[in-house]
Amino acid sequence: MLNFEFCSPTHFVFGKGTEAQAGKLVRQFGGNKILIHYGGASAERSGLLSRVRKSLEEEGLPFVELGGVKPNPRSGLVYEGIDLCRKEEVDFILAVGGGSVIDSAKAIAAGVFIEGDFWQYWETKTPVPKSLPVGTVLTIPAAGSESSHNTVITNEKTMVKRGTTGQCLRPKFSILNPELTFTLPAWQTASGASDIIAHVLERYFSNTEDVEVTDRLCEALLLTMVHETPRVIADPTCYEARANIMWAGALAHNNVVGVGREQDWATHALEHELSALRDVTHGAGLAVLFPAWMEKALPQKPKLFAKMALRIFGVEDQKDDEKTGALGIKAWRDFFTSIGMPSTLRELGMQEEDLPYMANRLMLKKDGTFGNFIKLTPADAEEIYRNCF
Amino acid sequence: MLNFEFCSPTHFVFGKGTEAQAGKLVRQFGGNKILIHYGGASAERSGLLSRVRKSLEEEGLPFVELGGVKPNPRSGLVYEGIDLCRKEEVDFILAVGGGSVIDSAKAIAAGVFIEGDFWQYWETKTPVPKSLPVGTVLTIPAAGSESSHNTVITNEKTMVKRGTTGQCLRPKFSILNPELTFTLPAWQTASGASDIIAHVLERYFSNTEDVEVTDRLCEALLLTMVHETPRVIADPTCYEARANIMWAGALAHNNVVGVGREQDWATHALEHELSALRDVTHGAGLAVLFPAWMEKALPQKPKLFAKMALRIFGVEDQKDDEKTGALGIKAWRDFFTSIGMPSTLRELGMQEEDLPYMANRLMLKKDGTFGNFIKLTPADAEEIYRNCF
Repeated sequence: MLNFEFCSPTHFVFGKGTEAQAGKLVRQFGGNKILIHYGGASAERSGLLSRVRKSLEEEGLPFVELGGVKPNPRSGLVYEGIDLCRKEEVDFILAVGGGSVIDSAKAIAAGVFIEGDFWQYWETKTPVPKSLPVGTVLTIPAAGSESSHNTVITNEKTMVKRGTTGQCLRPKFSILNPELTFTLPAWQTASGASDIIAHVLERYFSNTEDVEVTDRLCEALLLTMVHETPRVIADPTCYEARANIMWAGALAHNNVVGVGREQDWATHALEHELSALRDVTHGAGLAVLFPAWMEKALPQKPKLFAKMALRIFGVEDQKDDEKTGALGIKAWRDFFTSIGMPSTLRELGMQEEDLPYMANRLMLKKDGTFGNFIKLTPADAEEIYRNCF
Repeated sequence: MLNFEFCSPTHFVFGKGTEAQAGKLVRQFGGNKILIHYGGASAERSGLLSRVRKSLEEEGLPFVELGGVKPNPRSGLVYEGIDLCRKEEVDFILAVGGGSVIDSAKAIAAGVFIEGDFWQYWETKTPVPKSLPVGTVLTIPAAGSESSHNTVITNEKTMVKRGTTGQCLRPKFSILNPELTFTLPAWQTASGASDIIAHVLERYFSNTEDVEVTDRLCEALLLTMVHETPRVIADPTCYEARANIMWAGALAHNNVVGVGREQDWATHALEHELSALRDVTHGAGLAVLFPAWMEKALPQKPKLFAKMALRIFGVEDQKDDEKTGALGIKAWRDFFTSIGMPSTLRELGMQEEDLPYMANRLMLKKDGTFGNFIKLTPADAEEIYRNCF
């Protein structure tokens, strides 16, 4: 096991009706002037925004609002949010929405303290040192931004999608009410589930040997997702299945299942190019790319694939790691198909000429590669893209 | 899933040589005058205390010391520590040791702010509202006090063992270096492992239905412990196995695997009477009592026992929950025996006349019972004691 530090100080408030506690929690974490940051009209339509406003009003907390966050959140709204926070002397940002809203809120929260263009930190993946406190009311379990110290933004001018980190970006509190996810359409539910699964797989595929405890914890979340996702696709208002997915999503990305081990993250890098170029739904992109990445990695490192296949899908042991592992990859592909995810980039609207273009835009390490479990070159990236085109 | 709140803000620093960071961490968390609290001579002999002192000195942090914490830590030393902290104006307590040392440190830390006798909070299980900050350098993975908000103390006058809680009792930081556990004798290693397993089982046995995510997380830690404990018994300096156990121990009791579900805790209550009366090693007492408690619970609630047997031990499905579950209980009994744990209270030094005495000292709820998964009376307790006497 590698040496590590781990601190996940977010205060989680989980369950039915918990959004009514937003005002009390903002007060508890020192907010005096609030920015409510949100996405589209659905938060207004559902009454969620009214309930959040009421909760702040009950605490006598003044607020301003900034809506309009889109999936794959854009730099333009971040600049706007930074200006608004400075002008209004906002000292706490309350994100009401999914991962895009929370990521946008985190970028605004950090950007307030950045002289010049906030994008410099994202472009170079430099951790941000300081931010306003952020709280969240989560409406889509997917990105894990409600528990993570990550934020991913797309630069509107260059259409480059990049993420950065910062311990200050861990939300002070996150309100997780599974009922708020009842109305999510099947596509968004399945894309979110795929994102959660991908967050665990990026941590699972590791060259660090003999890390049984985090192996098993990763498998616990994967087993949960494989069991619960079909249940919510079949019955969108199944509270228990929504609840299991929501809590799994938070734990999939606060890194409790990833400590002490090298992590991969090649598939996320591959996907960010899709989302940036053609505004692909992140989770759907991951559902297409992960099996393709797995097929590339399998021949080089079959052992962990065999373990995954046996422990997650209970496949029959072929007494040959590569053959057993291949059954696991097939099982993932079948799973993603079963929940309504596409299996090709074409279905996501990508064009053939995009493939070399995206492969050449990937951010590479000094040795000209990306990824950790196996090292990939831009040529490998193009091959993976082609194999699932 | 039940509504819940969860916050585990402890900063974990895990790995080889990490005790050298003690001073820096105390400084980071605001300590200016430190009490180093520890147990017996082994921390001195091993050089650990010297390294911790050096680390504080390098930060220019003055300290006083209080050693002598015994297993099943006693109220007498807590009173002494409270007086010392008040006299020396200590503002940070650094616990160097196992769960007993940390529990004692937490009691001192809370006691400093309690007017009158600190024991009133323990006697009545009343959460403590305020405490000095505590940091830990863990030497025995077992009690989980390095991550939990719990502390258990034995009153020397009445020989009553009671625990209380308080969010303020979560350590500010915990330094976990698996190398520090290489010299633990087999008995302590196995007792610690049994304690960790028991912390998970107390959470696993729940009447809350359909909590797949925490079921799976509990199982992840149990599978880890069943795999790793025999490895360290066979090879005490196996770093990887020691590391897996140490991290599992921290996660077993910070409640990340227990949220959203009713928990049991009858077996811990049964064991506290053993430890209080005859100074039994807590983990060894749990290893004897848990299979006996399981046999009492099995006929009433066989379903979860069958799931445990299938998922943890991969027993053959008997197509009858009670029969399948019985194989799981047998597997636990065999496991505890294989790691050198006793299987009877007699081996732990208990006398037959102790059994009704202990059964009648148990703290009961208003309805005259204890435990949650199944409700037990003092008569049931005596029966369980007798069945493993």
